[in-house]
Amino acid sequence: MRNVVDELNPPPRRLMGPGPVDADPRVLRAMSMPLLGQFDPAFTEYMNEVMALYRQVLRTDNRWTFLVDGTARAGIEAAMVSLLAPGDRVLVPIFGRFGHLLCEVAARCGADVRTIETEWGTVFEPDRIAAAIREHRPALVAIVHGDTSTTMAQPLAEIGALCREHGTLLYVDATATVGGMDVRVDDWRIDVLSTGLQKCLAGPPGSAPITFNERVEARVRERRHIERGIRPDGFEAADGPVVRSNYFDLGMLMDYWSDSRLNHHTEATSMLYAARECARIALAEGLDDRFERHARASRALVAGLDAMGLERFGDQTRKMPNVTGVEIPAGVPGDAVRAMMLEDFGIEIGTSFGPLAGRIWRIGTMGYTCRKENVLVCLMALETALRAHGFRAPPGEAADAALAAWSSP
Amino acid sequence: MRNVVDELNPPPRRLMGPGPVDADPRVLRAMSMPLLGQFDPAFTEYMNEVMALYRQVLRTDNRWTFLVDGTARAGIEAAMVSLLAPGDRVLVPIFGRFGHLLCEVAARCGADVRTIETEWGTVFEPDRIAAAIREHRPALVAIVHGDTSTTMAQPLAEIGALCREHGTLLYVDATATVGGMDVRVDDWRIDVLSTGLQKCLAGPPGSAPITFNERVEARVRERRHIERGIRPDGFEAADGPVVRSNYFDLGMLMDYWSDSRLNHHTEATSMLYAARECARIALAEGLDDRFERHARASRALVAGLDAMGLERFGDQTRKMPNVTGVEIPAGVPGDAVRAMMLEDFGIEIGTSFGPLAGRIWRIGTMGYTCRKENVLVCLMALETALRAHGFRAPPGEAADAALAAWSSP
Repeated sequence: MRNVVDELNPPPRRLMGPGPVDADPRVLRAMSMPLLGQFDPAFTEYMNEVMALYRQVLRTDNRWTFLVDGTARAGIEAAMVSLLAPGDRVLVPIFGRFGHLLCEVAARCGADVRTIETEWGTVFEPDRIAAAIREHRPALVAIVHGDTSTTMAQPLAEIGALCREHGTLLYVDATATVGGMDVRVDDWRIDVLSTGLQKCLAGPPGSAPITFNERVEARVRERRHIERGIRPDGFEAADGPVVRSNYFDLGMLMDYWSDSRLNHHTEATSMLYAARECARIALAEGLDDRFERHARASRALVAGLDAMGLERFGDQTRKMPNVTGVEIPAGVPGDAVRAMMLEDFGIEIGTSFGPLAGRIWRIGTMGYTCRKENVLVCLMALETALRAHGFRAPPGEAADAALAAWSSP
Repeated sequence: MRNVVDELNPPPRRLMGPGPVDADPRVLRAMSMPLLGQFDPAFTEYMNEVMALYRQVLRTDNRWTFLVDGTARAGIEAAMVSLLAPGDRVLVPIFGRFGHLLCEVAARCGADVRTIETEWGTVFEPDRIAAAIREHRPALVAIVHGDTSTTMAQPLAEIGALCREHGTLLYVDATATVGGMDVRVDDWRIDVLSTGLQKCLAGPPGSAPITFNERVEARVRERRHIERGIRPDGFEAADGPVVRSNYFDLGMLMDYWSDSRLNHHTEATSMLYAARECARIALAEGLDDRFERHARASRALVAGLDAMGLERFGDQTRKMPNVTGVEIPAGVPGDAVRAMMLEDFGIEIGTSFGPLAGRIWRIGTMGYTCRKENVLVCLMALETALRAHGFRAPPGEAADAALAAWSSP
């Protein structure tokens, strides 16, 4: 280690794993703009624009739609810790690694965590979730929309209504899906949802958009505390149990993001610039066109994998369009193939976690990475890397099949 | 609000408040570099370099020296929540707003918070802290190094030894001082310290460097939990009470930043690039030269303010070099002057909080903003803005005095 290291010069990559993926160059450019003070009228206007932009991206009228300053996981924890007081019951339907994460975060809030599980590679029927709600009577149902660990997406259209019927709130972790497949906060009656920039929104990790409705706001307001030392009139507190985090207290974040602009953290200027540009790009493309682009890339990638004779992982009717799980063929060293993809082709693909570690590869086609040439080059590289490791796919057929599938309606 | 907002185009500013201040253009450029996957060998090497760089910046040999992905406040909360189990006693000597924040965060961890206070504008004598340690026998002493709310810096050289003597750990919030005045983690026997990029390190808010020693590591290890779903062998837990946060659990962050690279959050790629560049720039300048630059700017600014007949705020022997508190003259509308500074000169200066709101201005000379021309232009603009609001300083004398002071040894 030298005293002073070299200039930053990351090697060129195509990031086609489960995320982070390549950031759109326009997002990187936005991050290179000069900073503003946090209470500069130009900056608070940007904050307001970010709120309005993410209302559109998340298809919601929720007033409270803003950023949590941290990675996607920070958004999850802000929702959980602000809603769950110790002893509150939460139901987590688990269909992959990130369901376990929701349990983990909820348990650390002191919640009474109940779970149902389904085999990795499948998702839940609404009836099963309904039965679990009736059995456990949770205050909150917390569920992942798309779990990159299994590449599956849980249909959510019916879950919100189910939760209303039973008087429970619904939290959704939509980190992997927003910007890549339809997410309808209001139509699906989701009470609180968080996401991240680094998947289909084509930004860097480090900012977590969150949105929540009046039902959540009311719960949070019951736990409102304003810290000492920032107002001449001092301290102020509601009756509810104090939120166990200052940084993630949604009540304080509301005060900061509202016109009262009560100082809390210092908003992460450059990450806000990034979040703003991510939303701007997604809306300029058009959300539905963007989802269609992701679906098309998925069809093309899948056609190519099929042509190579590779098996896809999981229930294909529930597969996310933006990430595809592939079984590693018997006898093929999965990590060596991944290393060759990276070293010889500059392409990153992923493996998975827990029961799927070393069993599947995950190929992402997300956001800016979701482009025709990336699908084609990735397939050709994988074909070559597999051949180098003893697995012979019919040469050239993957790319031809992907090209044909890309052009089909 | 249009459907799609305009391209990001922040107005040009000189950010001379208490932070964030102007980021060094080299830091902005680093943030515009393409992303890497979080387990890409090139990226994990950058993570290791960041650890090595911040060891130098913080003058420590601590192995555990890394980034918390959030603003400076996230670093505070990570230290507190990882160390303080419910009921643990913490002593916070408060000499400004950020002391109250430490109490706030500690209270939310369930800690038994004891405080001593001193008038805003002063700091503590070591004897007073020693007496309080003897009285309260805390498990942790948590103190701010430089509190921008009052512009005061607490001398720390003796506090670490005091804490060792009494078997208590010492946490320091050095957000406002690192990179602008000397901070010696090892020499001062600080057990855990966190900071941010957006003050004297000349970066954007959104990443919190933290460092801690084996005493802290041991405490954290007693509370170690590994979440389910990421390892084939499943769950693992130590005997201590689980840390009340997943995102801020330093044990999990150690696993992520060590060679085991156990997946936790996804490291905020662009903010890590920024943090790396901030440290690289500071070390290339040389820490001692950098501190001298801040001290020189402070002397020049102070000479100019004196020449205008303005009163400085607080104990001048304890003033931070990187931010200067000025009493708003009687009859002068402080916010109107600040607004004129921003609108007519593009210069941001700050007001303060709590008892000092509307009573003082705070002028920052931090990091990249800490330059001769900024001091001069700020003084000339303030002189003009004051004149427009009925306060007549001797014309031109402030700039002349500052120029002379800048050139004095």
